[in-house]
Amino acid sequence: MRVFNFAAGPATMPLEVLEQARAELTDWRGSGMSVMEVSHRGKAFLAVAQGAEADLRELLAIPDDYRVLFLPGGATAQFAAIPMNLAGPGDVADYVNTGAWSKKALAEARRFLKVHVAADEAASKYTTVPGVATLRASPGAAYFHYTANETIGGVEFPYVPDPGGGVPLVADLSSNILSAPLPVARFGLIYAGAQKNIGPAGLAVVIVRAGLLRGARPGTPAVLDYAAQAQEGSMLNTPPTFAWYVAALVFQWLKAQGGLTVIAARNQAKARLLYDTIDASGFYANPVAKDCRSLMNVPFTLKEPELEPTFLTQARAAGLTNLEGHRSVGGMRASLYNAMPLAGVAALVAFMREFERRHG
Amino acid sequence: MRVFNFAAGPATMPLEVLEQARAELTDWRGSGMSVMEVSHRGKAFLAVAQGAEADLRELLAIPDDYRVLFLPGGATAQFAAIPMNLAGPGDVADYVNTGAWSKKALAEARRFLKVHVAADEAASKYTTVPGVATLRASPGAAYFHYTANETIGGVEFPYVPDPGGGVPLVADLSSNILSAPLPVARFGLIYAGAQKNIGPAGLAVVIVRAGLLRGARPGTPAVLDYAAQAQEGSMLNTPPTFAWYVAALVFQWLKAQGGLTVIAARNQAKARLLYDTIDASGFYANPVAKDCRSLMNVPFTLKEPELEPTFLTQARAAGLTNLEGHRSVGGMRASLYNAMPLAGVAALVAFMREFERRHG
Repeated sequence: MRVFNFAAGPATMPLEVLEQARAELTDWRGSGMSVMEVSHRGKAFLAVAQGAEADLRELLAIPDDYRVLFLPGGATAQFAAIPMNLAGPGDVADYVNTGAWSKKALAEARRFLKVHVAADEAASKYTTVPGVATLRASPGAAYFHYTANETIGGVEFPYVPDPGGGVPLVADLSSNILSAPLPVARFGLIYAGAQKNIGPAGLAVVIVRAGLLRGARPGTPAVLDYAAQAQEGSMLNTPPTFAWYVAALVFQWLKAQGGLTVIAARNQAKARLLYDTIDASGFYANPVAKDCRSLMNVPFTLKEPELEPTFLTQARAAGLTNLEGHRSVGGMRASLYNAMPLAGVAALVAFMREFERRHG
Repeated sequence: MRVFNFAAGPATMPLEVLEQARAELTDWRGSGMSVMEVSHRGKAFLAVAQGAEADLRELLAIPDDYRVLFLPGGATAQFAAIPMNLAGPGDVADYVNTGAWSKKALAEARRFLKVHVAADEAASKYTTVPGVATLRASPGAAYFHYTANETIGGVEFPYVPDPGGGVPLVADLSSNILSAPLPVARFGLIYAGAQKNIGPAGLAVVIVRAGLLRGARPGTPAVLDYAAQAQEGSMLNTPPTFAWYVAALVFQWLKAQGGLTVIAARNQAKARLLYDTIDASGFYANPVAKDCRSLMNVPFTLKEPELEPTFLTQARAAGLTNLEGHRSVGGMRASLYNAMPLAGVAALVAFMREFERRHG
């Protein structure tokens, strides 16, 4: 029995991936061992690690002059690692504030350099993104950071910023990496926690232009030193091997689906179905400006908020789980990551219509 | 088909634990979801996290005034976190050097404070530990660090140092935590990467006296800030949930075995069988002083080193895997963590005797 799990992360994973992990959990590829039990430096695991990188490079068409790192922890560790690796203590970096995750990234960065807030969408209550023309890098900024998708607010940039001035663009893609093709060459650095579109929590992927790895500042823990990790093939320390292995299975699954063009079309169809249902209703509402609604995270409210517990309980009974909004904002939220099938969104929409019919 | 896997870490795990993880990998406790797919902040996962801590407290009899943290990454991240949390940049900390992992810990610490090498076993080529009476803390040292078991050299402290002067004792127990009862109250801080006796790689356990958490130094990444992580129940960021869940299963397995007194007796019996076989032979040799031989990691050499590849190949064919010594030292190494049954050591010893009979 499986449900449709709309959790924001850790999130639903492709059933085929879980089934393969299950099939070989005590005897991986005839080794008589679990993949969890083998050395990260053994030939068998190195093939997994190299395969994962090759598949990710193929999926995202990552140029050769970019390094790909698989690091322990998640995006929060990278909030610190980015200034420690790309800037000195007296430097300035630009940060765009589009909501909760932007704020966390820039608050952590403030421990390590001077943050210049390049744009702040407070006026719209974080239901918008800045106009593309307004995003200009500060003179001499070490980098220009933005959060491509706000998991809590449900706001997603419909474009890639072009801050100019030769300032490297740095993007948190934790909740929308691999949801569509990406022009990697326009970025200096991309990072993502694994637990939405990549694999289990406890792993982060960093894709960084090699020329930016000029050495971390003094006082950087070795595990957060990108150049050192790149030098060691992301094995400066024992890496989270099981999460890396599952990520490798997810990348293979994405390729088997037809790659990111196919995935993007599916994600468009899924999001359209849900947003159209919300917009056609006087009962449900989504506050985000239409041109920057997230394809991955769809927050919505009921006209009568006192019905929310009933909605959630009945949804759960119908096999539609984890629709609670983030504890900081309440309401509902449906996350539609790659592993959520269209059938799951169709079931959600059918439930929502029936709920509205009975309670609207 | 399962082999006896003597890997040093990631290492063999209890088959019962792997089988339970496999049984519920796509449908955890009737939820219709994998444990990998649920929120770390949901009730179901919080019960796992709390159960893991309660069981670990029971197994190690951890006093109430100690905090238990489950953190992303492994021991290498803690090599940096410890000075960042327990000392200021101008402080001195004592480090005992008993081999490869001591050296890594003190090299990383040097980025953050002044390291005083309290003892160095170079003269014995790291086949000994210092005499208990020689280990005295420096006046005013922030803490006194030692590596309780050297995974590569196969040297284990047969005693807990008592550095005196009110200086907190800090121990890397990555490769021997939970192998025997431990007098936790004698330590200021204990840390261990998970991938030997706890669970999958990508998780570290830190047990720290609450009074030592006076706040990390400026410039500490939030994820490495012990006080902040303690405040957030180790969920300042999304934790490595699957590894945490497997650790919880391992703790339950340890309790089902009868706890650490039973485990320690088993580990004694396993190590004695292997060391006795080595010592009774003129064909195999272990270089470590008898009073500080590791119960967890047993390096050994052949009288005729040119037979090593044959030994390893035939051992593998006999279902005895990962007996290669660490790449830095060569030779052989058998790791005998908690999950290695006595039957595995008996099979290894039988193989070694037969190999000696044919080649000795």
